[in-house]
Amino acid sequence: MAIELKNLTKRADNYSQWYNELVVKADLAEQSAVRGCMVIKPYGYAIWEKMQRQLDDMFKATGHVNAYFPLLIPKSFFSKEADHVKGFAKECAVVTHYRLMNDPNGDGVVVDPSAKLDEELIIRPTSETIIWNTYKNWINSYRDLPILCNQWANVFRWEMRTRMFLRTAEFLWQEGHTAHATSEEAQAEAVKMLNVYAEFAENFMAVPVVKGVKSATERFAGALETYTIEAMMQDGKALQSGTSHFLGQNFAKAFDVQFIDKDNQLKYVWATSWGVSTRLMGALIMCHSDDNGLVLPPKLAPIQVVIVPIYKNDEQLSAINAKVEPIVNGLKSLGISVKYDNAENKRPGFKFADYELKGVPVRLAIGARDLENGTVELMRRDTLEKETVPFDGIVDNIAALLNEMQTAIFEKAKKYRDAKMIEVNSYDEFKEKIEEGGFLLAHWDGTPETEEKIKNETKATIRCIPLDGDTTPGKCMVTGNPSAQRVVFARNY
Amino acid sequence: MAIELKNLTKRADNYSQWYNELVVKADLAEQSAVRGCMVIKPYGYAIWEKMQRQLDDMFKATGHVNAYFPLLIPKSFFSKEADHVKGFAKECAVVTHYRLMNDPNGDGVVVDPSAKLDEELIIRPTSETIIWNTYKNWINSYRDLPILCNQWANVFRWEMRTRMFLRTAEFLWQEGHTAHATSEEAQAEAVKMLNVYAEFAENFMAVPVVKGVKSATERFAGALETYTIEAMMQDGKALQSGTSHFLGQNFAKAFDVQFIDKDNQLKYVWATSWGVSTRLMGALIMCHSDDNGLVLPPKLAPIQVVIVPIYKNDEQLSAINAKVEPIVNGLKSLGISVKYDNAENKRPGFKFADYELKGVPVRLAIGARDLENGTVELMRRDTLEKETVPFDGIVDNIAALLNEMQTAIFEKAKKYRDAKMIEVNSYDEFKEKIEEGGFLLAHWDGTPETEEKIKNETKATIRCIPLDGDTTPGKCMVTGNPSAQRVVFARNY
Repeated sequence: MAIELKNLTKRADNYSQWYNELVVKADLAEQSAVRGCMVIKPYGYAIWEKMQRQLDDMFKATGHVNAYFPLLIPKSFFSKEADHVKGFAKECAVVTHYRLMNDPNGDGVVVDPSAKLDEELIIRPTSETIIWNTYKNWINSYRDLPILCNQWANVFRWEMRTRMFLRTAEFLWQEGHTAHATSEEAQAEAVKMLNVYAEFAENFMAVPVVKGVKSATERFAGALETYTIEAMMQDGKALQSGTSHFLGQNFAKAFDVQFIDKDNQLKYVWATSWGVSTRLMGALIMCHSDDNGLVLPPKLAPIQVVIVPIYKNDEQLSAINAKVEPIVNGLKSLGISVKYDNAENKRPGFKFADYELKGVPVRLAIGARDLENGTVELMRRDTLEKETVPFDGIVDNIAALLNEMQTAIFEKAKKYRDAKMIEVNSYDEFKEKIEEGGFLLAHWDGTPETEEKIKNETKATIRCIPLDGDTTPGKCMVTGNPSAQRVVFARNY
Repeated sequence: MAIELKNLTKRADNYSQWYNELVVKADLAEQSAVRGCMVIKPYGYAIWEKMQRQLDDMFKATGHVNAYFPLLIPKSFFSKEADHVKGFAKECAVVTHYRLMNDPNGDGVVVDPSAKLDEELIIRPTSETIIWNTYKNWINSYRDLPILCNQWANVFRWEMRTRMFLRTAEFLWQEGHTAHATSEEAQAEAVKMLNVYAEFAENFMAVPVVKGVKSATERFAGALETYTIEAMMQDGKALQSGTSHFLGQNFAKAFDVQFIDKDNQLKYVWATSWGVSTRLMGALIMCHSDDNGLVLPPKLAPIQVVIVPIYKNDEQLSAINAKVEPIVNGLKSLGISVKYDNAENKRPGFKFADYELKGVPVRLAIGARDLENGTVELMRRDTLEKETVPFDGIVDNIAALLNEMQTAIFEKAKKYRDAKMIEVNSYDEFKEKIEEGGFLLAHWDGTPETEEKIKNETKATIRCIPLDGDTTPGKCMVTGNPSAQRVVFARNY
């Protein structure tokens, strides 16, 4: 066993520390020299690239196009939408100067005081304002609608407490910003993208999610409705994994974006925005991984199969190399990514531990005895089960196994999630159960006051009003007032 | 003809204005509300995405991986490499504060004076410093080398005079940063990536380039050697289209990055960096386009074929729709992107002009008479030639035509470039010829003083010392001193 692996904290001992260590030990990311900003290392970035590619394909399949808008936003733009400024304009990076100069004292460079900007520029925390300021020039008539744009970009929010992938000052994301002629169309778009996110989470990340609507308190700053997908981590806490907002006409009014409709009337445009970020990496890691390291669903694994030769001399290695070559070619021809690791400077045991830590779904080991017997040792990462399998038909068997594992990883996560998603019927029961984690389905009277009280007393927030939940009315567990339906409470990241 | 097209300035009348107008009219990009920053519109971004995808594939095929480093760099990092600070730390965006607050006078938001950073952060103009500060932790032994990382990112340089794509304050690019155990390996890497850029420019952008080495004056700040590809625009000016730098041990020494070599000695690491940016969009546009609009090489065209129906009634349209369907499916099955534009709210003439403006390589028009005759009208964008072709075999014919056009567009550009790349043998001749544009091959004594004099007197700079040029020695056209070989002079963007 590799030293790195031995030192990985166990989930049961300290879940939070296990996560922090795993991110670093599996070479996913590390802290940078800049407070709150991470470096995404090649292995972590390779997973993000697979996510990006898949999401981008899904966005394009639903009619969206990519564009790019400026990183910096004039300060005054934030004041134009009243709710938005409250939510976003505070903790942000402010550019005030555009030049440095040599320190008159000869000590490096200093800010040139004469190069002060007339109006400060803000590094985008999100781009609604600059984009709606741009859309104003793109939209005149109903013929110009809808606009279905997405942007892949970096954004910056000056977070006080940061954790890699989960909450960082700078993060990578996509932000869709659409413009529509009618409220109905915009609402349908917001729901459509929620469904795209849910499909991606479940079918690619193998992370089961609850789709729902946020309470007014938890809405995006400037939205009339925020849709969300909520995932459960292995400590029972919720992780908001993607949001889609129906923005009504708020931004159109703030930036005066009107169009001539078919009826020749001048109307304000309807808007949505929706985004997922490198936070998804956190969800992926925390949902599936174990005390040995990462567990990656095959569809997002940069390396799906690793093959390690076990040999005592060059002759054995040559024989193994020859035997492995058709497996590698066979897997590649099926579009399966495979690495044959015959590097001589590391021992098989080290390699095994390292690929386990990195979550490679399938590991083959092949030694001298295997050559004689026509077999290979196969280990699947999700269950850590090893078996000796025949060489014949190995390529097709691996292809089938990868599909099986994708489903199994999802089912395992879903089983865990379902077992910890329970109905509670009194506030006392709620306070007791919330200590064990999980999603608690409880009745709530719909007021921000009750929501606030529950949050203060239990640290649990309303994650969402589920779209596919039980819609039987009831009575609020706190106030006894009428409740339209059970909502999902949880502690969260 | 569409109004937009009629208004496009002719190249001969004002090349610069033609370019600026074309970028906007072809829906590639527009100025944003932020000084010097552009919005890349969906059609322009689709071309950039095709470039990105191809380059990324080529980087990966040469063993590189992607990663992501922070947007913001501590100010002190820039002072660590003496040449680098001179070149980059001056005109840049400086983050000094991390919070806004409500204006005490009730007028929007203002910078919170209490949220001043101890050390200012600079928006990356390029990432050598933050990356080498990171590599310090990644490199201990020769076993950790080479590191072959690339990053796709936005960067920011506070340019005074900006032009869309050619020179903008914020631009998108990729920056490769590699670390090596030996000087030889790093130098070979820098040349390898120069060749990747040249191959991309010529085989995908259809832009012929001269590969060469920069003079010391024109070197990247901190490099020992800068390799470049130089393209010629239709006004005879040069556009530097990609650079690859051999950085020696400068950054390793500045950030103290050492490794234990095989011989057990502690040594400084050798470095390269290399990048291309959205500036390539400018090269693509200016190299091929004409007075009717964009001309795109098929390999980078977001839409390769457009089909426009010409009809008088619904019955004719239905018949055309049925006839077009197998063409669309046939082209798609060959991986050719095709758009059937049967939108009813625009007339065929408008569509023709619009797709010409946007540079769609092949346009098919099909009307009632074509149905009778089993023919289609085909226009190729590069030559604007129209011909009536049989419906039978149209899919294969288009596939062949696209290949033919890719070559023809390159050959046309190369013929133009070659005709304007001429040897001059006296400074008087040089001064005369430089007024006509083009690449002038002249002898130079190798001194910065002569280079400076020529620049001041003629506005021409040394674009490069060509790698594949005539290496016959001669005498400097200005001083008469010995010259090792002819170098390429031009006015440039």
